[in-house]
Amino acid sequence: VATSRRPLRLALLGFGNVGRYFVGQLAGAYGRVLHAAGVEPLVTGIATGRHGVALDRDGLALSRALRLVKAGQTLTPLHRGAPIDDADAFIARVRADVLLELTPLVPTSGEPALGYVRAALARGLHVVTANKGPVAFGRRRLMRLAARQGVQFRHEGVVMDGFPIFNLTERCLPGTRILGFRGLLNSTTTRILGRMEAGLDFDAALAEAQAAGVAEADPRHDIDGWDAAVKACALANALMDADIRPDQVERRGIGGLGSADVGAALARGCRLRLIVRARRRAGRLHVSVGPESLPQDDVLVSSGADGVLVLETDLMREVGLWEGAGGVDQTAYALLADLVAIARSA
Amino acid sequence: VATSRRPLRLALLGFGNVGRYFVGQLAGAYGRVLHAAGVEPLVTGIATGRHGVALDRDGLALSRALRLVKAGQTLTPLHRGAPIDDADAFIARVRADVLLELTPLVPTSGEPALGYVRAALARGLHVVTANKGPVAFGRRRLMRLAARQGVQFRHEGVVMDGFPIFNLTERCLPGTRILGFRGLLNSTTTRILGRMEAGLDFDAALAEAQAAGVAEADPRHDIDGWDAAVKACALANALMDADIRPDQVERRGIGGLGSADVGAALARGCRLRLIVRARRRAGRLHVSVGPESLPQDDVLVSSGADGVLVLETDLMREVGLWEGAGGVDQTAYALLADLVAIARSA
Repeated sequence: VATSRRPLRLALLGFGNVGRYFVGQLAGAYGRVLHAAGVEPLVTGIATGRHGVALDRDGLALSRALRLVKAGQTLTPLHRGAPIDDADAFIARVRADVLLELTPLVPTSGEPALGYVRAALARGLHVVTANKGPVAFGRRRLMRLAARQGVQFRHEGVVMDGFPIFNLTERCLPGTRILGFRGLLNSTTTRILGRMEAGLDFDAALAEAQAAGVAEADPRHDIDGWDAAVKACALANALMDADIRPDQVERRGIGGLGSADVGAALARGCRLRLIVRARRRAGRLHVSVGPESLPQDDVLVSSGADGVLVLETDLMREVGLWEGAGGVDQTAYALLADLVAIARSA
Repeated sequence: VATSRRPLRLALLGFGNVGRYFVGQLAGAYGRVLHAAGVEPLVTGIATGRHGVALDRDGLALSRALRLVKAGQTLTPLHRGAPIDDADAFIARVRADVLLELTPLVPTSGEPALGYVRAALARGLHVVTANKGPVAFGRRRLMRLAARQGVQFRHEGVVMDGFPIFNLTERCLPGTRILGFRGLLNSTTTRILGRMEAGLDFDAALAEAQAAGVAEADPRHDIDGWDAAVKACALANALMDADIRPDQVERRGIGGLGSADVGAALARGCRLRLIVRARRRAGRLHVSVGPESLPQDDVLVSSGADGVLVLETDLMREVGLWEGAGGVDQTAYALLADLVAIARSA
């Protein structure tokens, strides 16, 4: 196809649900959006956890890559060049403009994703991540490194499945300071507490969430508030120019809550939910995660929401962002929105 | 003050609460935001309804203008040049880059604001309005005129007091189509229905809202749903590329509702609110305003909200925007955000 579009070469590190959905959309809606932004997307590398690595500087055949992975096979037949088998080598060798960092979160350290992002930025690649680890554990240093390298580090997809939180505050609230925020950010605990309101006990509600694929086999990251704490740090670091780590968050989980607690709240017209709060007090940033009993008509416990975030600002008072049922399509869309920003700035 | 900032000359047509708040902030926070955007704001004209008109190509003394108006006096002492006494002459003569159109809404026609915007665009001025009339009654033609003239027509302040609705959809949802929306957009009826839930009858709740300055002396525009219908058209025209007028909205007000209706809804765990809905069905856009009974935990009836808008999209599912207690400061901020957009595009 003759075109005046600039190529935008993409390398995917991680190829789970989000990456596969994203790649599947490149031949359709996402491709059209990128074309409108003046670029022709070309996936020059995919590194997976269990299906090998494939590089092709001329662009990989994406439908074939999706078929291979779906069939449980390796991507190696698509690979051109010397064999490659780890993420560090992938980042060092892939010919790309942007690394899409899509590895799973390790909520206690942010690694190895943090190192991957650092290595890609140091090589002069833009980085778009859907992994909150690097944002929660090292955003400030990564932004500085990106600025020195003249590239971008973007992460719209890390909180609320790609709802445009970071792009909104960057572009639509000029000069506004975010003084604090409160939010409902962990959908697994929301689901468990909601099912307990319907009469299930904690173990049954958890088992149901696990059976539905909502909760992890090891659900402690959600139950104990680690996932919410990591998101709170990502938000505080990005929106309030903080440099706080998850272990500095005052954190309580929902593990200690029983049916009696949920029922007592309901009887008062309230709902128990795992709530995130951040506020600067006397110059110090205080971030907390914990169960709270909130009136049924509080926006944070409104029905049908996978995520709610209320920003407390100086010039615009309260700016609330509400996400209905979330999904991988929204996180994948966040990657697209970040790529459009990169395409437009080039 | 020596500066490399470009002057950005502003003409205010209308000088009510929003305009006065805006002007008062130019020496403070808003001035700093505009400086950061590379411009030095200069108010070269103010046209008021009851305090005369003042033009000064070198910039009016704003603190003096605010003092005069506050004291109930005319702005004439600040005026330089031949006398001027109507809005048309003001638009024709003012030396400005941007007209801030801040006249009151006439919800049945959008005039005379529509004509003012048209005249200013035709003169080659950018226009920023906080008046939903021109957006509801003629956005498509005004946008075309602006494009021909190489200027911008912006209106962030017309719905939800300046919450960044239009800038968000323009900048943060690339390629996303808005298929419909639902919203709570008229705070006067929300207040009245809320007070009826607390036991007041309709007349008492209305009188209280009028005493508080929330409802107009003639409250029919709110009660009968005209205000909500105008906002629905502004949203449909801007977000869904429609060209619909308020008289094409299926409109029912809250005037027929009594304490029994409100009480019956409450007894079912629901709240009555005036709700706006828009949806394309079989290629036709359908927009409605009317009272609905919604569960207490629906985001549209959450407590503390002056406005709620849920956008129904193709690529990003439901994107909900929630505004806490609104005010003139937020509408004034929307003018600022629009001016920053103009400054950055210049």
